[in-house]
Amino acid sequence: MSPDIKIDIGRARSSAVTAEHGVSPAELKAIAPRVDEGHGALKADRARKRLGFYDLYKDKATLSGVKKSARAFVAEGYENFVVLGIGGSALGITTLVTALKPSYYNLLSADRRQGRPRVFVMDNVDPETFGAMLELCPPEKTLFNVISKSGGTAETVSQLLIVLERLEKSLGKAAVKRHLVVTTGPSSAKGAKSPLQHVKTTYRLQGFSVPANVGGRFSVFSPVGMFPAAVLGIDVDALAAGCRAMDRRTSKPSLKDNPAYLRAAVHYILSERKGKSIAVMMPYSDRLRDVADWYRQLWAESLGKEGSLSGKKPLQCRAQTPVKALGVTDQHSQLQLYLEGPNDKVITILEQSAFECSLKIPNFSARKGGVSYLRAKTMKRLIASEKEATADALRDADRPLIRITLPQVNEHALGQLLYMFEVETAMAGRLFNVNAFDQPAVESIKVFTRKYMGGKA
Amino acid sequence: MSPDIKIDIGRARSSAVTAEHGVSPAELKAIAPRVDEGHGALKADRARKRLGFYDLYKDKATLSGVKKSARAFVAEGYENFVVLGIGGSALGITTLVTALKPSYYNLLSADRRQGRPRVFVMDNVDPETFGAMLELCPPEKTLFNVISKSGGTAETVSQLLIVLERLEKSLGKAAVKRHLVVTTGPSSAKGAKSPLQHVKTTYRLQGFSVPANVGGRFSVFSPVGMFPAAVLGIDVDALAAGCRAMDRRTSKPSLKDNPAYLRAAVHYILSERKGKSIAVMMPYSDRLRDVADWYRQLWAESLGKEGSLSGKKPLQCRAQTPVKALGVTDQHSQLQLYLEGPNDKVITILEQSAFECSLKIPNFSARKGGVSYLRAKTMKRLIASEKEATADALRDADRPLIRITLPQVNEHALGQLLYMFEVETAMAGRLFNVNAFDQPAVESIKVFTRKYMGGKA
Repeated sequence: MSPDIKIDIGRARSSAVTAEHGVSPAELKAIAPRVDEGHGALKADRARKRLGFYDLYKDKATLSGVKKSARAFVAEGYENFVVLGIGGSALGITTLVTALKPSYYNLLSADRRQGRPRVFVMDNVDPETFGAMLELCPPEKTLFNVISKSGGTAETVSQLLIVLERLEKSLGKAAVKRHLVVTTGPSSAKGAKSPLQHVKTTYRLQGFSVPANVGGRFSVFSPVGMFPAAVLGIDVDALAAGCRAMDRRTSKPSLKDNPAYLRAAVHYILSERKGKSIAVMMPYSDRLRDVADWYRQLWAESLGKEGSLSGKKPLQCRAQTPVKALGVTDQHSQLQLYLEGPNDKVITILEQSAFECSLKIPNFSARKGGVSYLRAKTMKRLIASEKEATADALRDADRPLIRITLPQVNEHALGQLLYMFEVETAMAGRLFNVNAFDQPAVESIKVFTRKYMGGKA
Repeated sequence: MSPDIKIDIGRARSSAVTAEHGVSPAELKAIAPRVDEGHGALKADRARKRLGFYDLYKDKATLSGVKKSARAFVAEGYENFVVLGIGGSALGITTLVTALKPSYYNLLSADRRQGRPRVFVMDNVDPETFGAMLELCPPEKTLFNVISKSGGTAETVSQLLIVLERLEKSLGKAAVKRHLVVTTGPSSAKGAKSPLQHVKTTYRLQGFSVPANVGGRFSVFSPVGMFPAAVLGIDVDALAAGCRAMDRRTSKPSLKDNPAYLRAAVHYILSERKGKSIAVMMPYSDRLRDVADWYRQLWAESLGKEGSLSGKKPLQCRAQTPVKALGVTDQHSQLQLYLEGPNDKVITILEQSAFECSLKIPNFSARKGGVSYLRAKTMKRLIASEKEATADALRDADRPLIRITLPQVNEHALGQLLYMFEVETAMAGRLFNVNAFDQPAVESIKVFTRKYMGGKA
């Protein structure tokens, strides 16, 4: 069994960064009853099956169906695998691909890809990009997976209709089912079929179901993320085992045992009492960079609400804005601001203990001019040193910092990490006193979009 | 001559989003004397050659040397072009490539690339990514361009030494000069050579100079950005013409004529008086997405200072945190927060009037279930409608918005856009009362890094 991921809030404490900017033991103690209360409410919602994300990893029948179907499709030897989806339908698989497939994956030969297809995640409706994807991915060599929980997301439906026409014109109606898989939610309460469901029926397509009690941004461990992962050779059982390992930790009620609750509490206290209105996620690992985008949706869309859970009184503390920054790269872009600009951020460094290679820095005679400290070192040591240097500079500037350390970047660690963030966000919803599981404002956009498309508002 | 880019602050005005959240005519009038004063100071610094970025586009000799050298290297038929650089040495060319080369450029055949090499910008020191690049780019098929103004940036020097050893071992010392080009600044005042200069001399390499009066984040129109651009077939003369067109507009002193000063003033007023501590750049165009990262460095590193220009008194208004968001994609991630979370943001929508293709959405009978508004429309119309919908929803929520419209995404427009942002940032430095041209805090990181590398602190 792989070791657990580690969460260290030491440098977000008042003892490290002053009482003005850090969390004190008394503040953690004071929040504990609210965490307890939240724990009870979440546990009840889980038991009543109102919150489905907690138990996705336990659904062996679904995971085994996903794996079986993926195996059959992979055996067909597709050169390309294209996900049509946006938001929660896209961010999970993007995160997993970046973390778990080799760098520059799409540029590798079929051999180096071990017979797996290249991958394209189409999470926008820029016609130039979509047109370019269509040119790169001819129908006969491509498997598409269209994903939308509602089955009617305008961006995704428009992508689907364009792809469907190409498939049918090139290959004939009967062949569409060998090139298109549908992942969508159940029919509405009134039994009305969504566009994705119509397409699925008409073309007799294979498909997977998104449970009604799992929202898009919490759906990575459902077939939304797991079917694409399996197609690409990512070990979905090891992801599930990672979830299970974290579920054990995040089922505990107390802050000291539960890293998800601890992170939620620290973020809440720093937001409410110390003016940290921005939550920065800073991976020091190219593989982990897209975790920051996935977390960014989770945190922003779950907590960015104006109505409170308990009625209409104004919220005491408003949501934080999540920001992605990449170590070392953004040391040369954002760190000047983080160190000398307003002290309004809590920063999470996301790191891996081990890299698969270290890259020795050669000992050339030309190495002069004040860089003798590079002598006989490795690039791995350099990135680690830069990270420690950043952490120290942030501490000296009294900027609160949390560290999350993955023993290795593999399925087991990613399962733990993403599951922890989900539970953290659920608890943060309780502490910020908002419904972490809806997105009412996005509805207004849909109405305006229809108007501009010339349809009924 | 291509038309000018347009800047519209209409929806950042108090008339659109209330006096609490927008800029009033009286506030713009009140800031005008400070803009005048800043204009005089910047103009004097430009005339005295203390600020070199303004006039880079006029340096015909340098641009012609860059073009000539690029032509000669391209004629050698390299398959790969690799930039070794970080921060300002990387962000400019990344922005230009994304905007001006076709989507999925590195996946295109040599034919479709018109004989130009693939491009890799190595802006980090993750050993796994760097090792993967080395495997994809064998020495004999690759041209490297190492870029560091100081010539001693630890990340870039370590990359250089690794590449240098591979080149010399594979091809012999004499051949290194056909595969490595150095772009760096002048020697220090004491005449000490930097590591890049040592390598350049030892291997008799071709190289380009970064003027001493041009900082990294303002260097895109120097050989830092222009040599890579020319190698990739980007029209550097058209970029320069774009700068010239914008220089004419941004040389005017008054807010109503000068879009750079207007944007600086609006951002300052919204930051100082309306609590907008976050500046969001939201491109509705995949091609323009990396402009947001380039701007993010410019804005954060220039304005994120604790010392004031005029002495040590505390700053009246602290720097904004820049944030990148991508339309339509981030409508499904961040927009819920922007609409219902704290009203602490000023948002810039960056858009293009014309796309090169429109992609008709086919009229399938399966299109049922409430998306009839897609009937006989195009993907181009959908992205435009989503953008207008977002703008309207933001206005209804009293969130201030600026729009920047490019008539087309081409060199002339990019030249205008990036030049405008540079002048805007220079003026913002005057208004925020900070030195926009240094980065003192980044120095502390270098000292800590050396300590962790085991060298002298």
